[in-house]
Amino acid sequence: MWQLYQFPLCPFSRKVRLLMGEKSVGYELVRESPWEQRDEFLDMNPAGRTPVLRHSQRDVSLADSNAICEYIEETVEKSPMINGTATNRAEIRRLTAWFDEQFYGDVTAPLLFERMHKRLIHRAPPDAKLLREAMRRANVHLDYIDYLIDHRSWLAGATMSLADLSAAAQISVADYLGGIDWAGHEQTRAWYSMFKSRPSFRPLLSERMEVIAPPAHYEKVDF
Amino acid sequence: MWQLYQFPLCPFSRKVRLLMGEKSVGYELVRESPWEQRDEFLDMNPAGRTPVLRHSQRDVSLADSNAICEYIEETVEKSPMINGTATNRAEIRRLTAWFDEQFYGDVTAPLLFERMHKRLIHRAPPDAKLLREAMRRANVHLDYIDYLIDHRSWLAGATMSLADLSAAAQISVADYLGGIDWAGHEQTRAWYSMFKSRPSFRPLLSERMEVIAPPAHYEKVDF
Ligand SMILES: N[C@@H](CCC(=O)N[C@@H](CS)C(=O)NCC(=O)O)C(=O)O
Ligand SMILES: N[C@@H](CCC(=O)N[C@@H](CS)C(=O)NCC(=O)O)C(=O)O
Repeated sequence: MWQLYQFPLCPFSRKVRLLMGEKSVGYELVRESPWEQRDEFLDMNPAGRTPVLRHSQRDVSLADSNAICEYIEETVEKSPMINGTATNRAEIRRLTAWFDEQFYGDVTAPLLFERMHKRLIHRAPPDAKLLREAMRRANVHLDYIDYLIDHRSWLAGATMSLADLSAAAQISVADYLGGIDWAGHEQTRAWYSMFKSRPSFRPLLSERMEVIAPPAHYEKVDF
Repeated sequence: MWQLYQFPLCPFSRKVRLLMGEKSVGYELVRESPWEQRDEFLDMNPAGRTPVLRHSQRDVSLADSNAICEYIEETVEKSPMINGTATNRAEIRRLTAWFDEQFYGDVTAPLLFERMHKRLIHRAPPDAKLLREAMRRANVHLDYIDYLIDHRSWLAGATMSLADLSAAAQISVADYLGGIDWAGHEQTRAWYSMFKSRPSFRPLLSERMEVIAPPAHYEKVDF
């Protein structure tokens, strides 16, 4: 059985979970708080970051969410998520990196820092100015997603791909942390609502991170 | 003909150039300074980052160095650099991400900011304390590379891979900016010296970034 080392609000772990869900690959969750930098965890991943995916019977241990997703894509045929021509695949990988790096850096990372790290580690209140700035940037990102969905059925092209999973993973964490104002983003809202009703997404939405409650609309498919 | 939008000290563009060099794919360099955020460049890559690889006759435009490298790997058979079993490939991608994210974040990015951005954009001197800190971190990274080379022929396994190219790209920029102290890193030095003599690497080493001169040993195979 695969074991995924993660914590409920890690967007990169959520991307891996959505992919494994879509492909019906079973796994067990192992709770890991990377900020504790446990020695055993650093042995598995010297970067000290979640997610790590392990299969102890097969002696396989994988780190970095993209290395993990490419591995799953290569070894499990069902529901290909990095598919099509080489150019299609490059567009899927470009957008996956866009959400993992730009959306994460502009929106998810500052929200996690202000609302989770500060609370759990520093026992300090969030900085309202930085929260507003992250929300303003989220709005610009949602404009870009609206634009993509105006031109394509799915974010990277004609079919659902890893880019959609990566975007949904980042947005879901930002939404949990109250960072998304859905007003005026009807295209993204419709795309995300469809996502929320998928069996791969339901288990993620029902989980909670201790001491941090999501807004009322977070789990609702109609929001 | 491919056109690569880049500037001489962009480590991600260097990784792409090393890969294209190893695979003997021809390309033309187009100078791009991403900090100028030219409208035409933002149209090609909304992330506003180098590298971008274009082929106007074939109407292909690719952004994000990993999307580009995977594309080249998929379309050019010669000298495979993401090779082996699915587990081998996951290890190559884990280490590639390690150098692109950890080494870049700890070492290359602060060196570029202190020594290049401050000079070119802010016309301010570098902060000696931050430079020392980046060099201290470079030393820890070189310890890790020494360790990998003690256990394997190449960084990710038995053959040269994208992980070696990614590491060499980051190290070469850090070395250009005076951030590497080679004392005590004989394994990494021997590996890097062999790299420096490869035909794919020679053109990069002879280029210069205006106003910033590399240390005397930078271009030498024996250093
Ligand atoms: N590029 C990595 C990023 C992983 C990452 O940043 N994980 C965060 C949690 S969301 C982490 O573990 N941070 C702890 C740290 O950087 O020390 C991936 O895709 O797996
Ligand atoms: N993950 C990207 C990173 C590219 C990147 O950070 N490029 C830098 C130059 S070395 C850049 O263009 N920075 C400008 C910016 O971020 O605004 C890749 O691999 O292509």
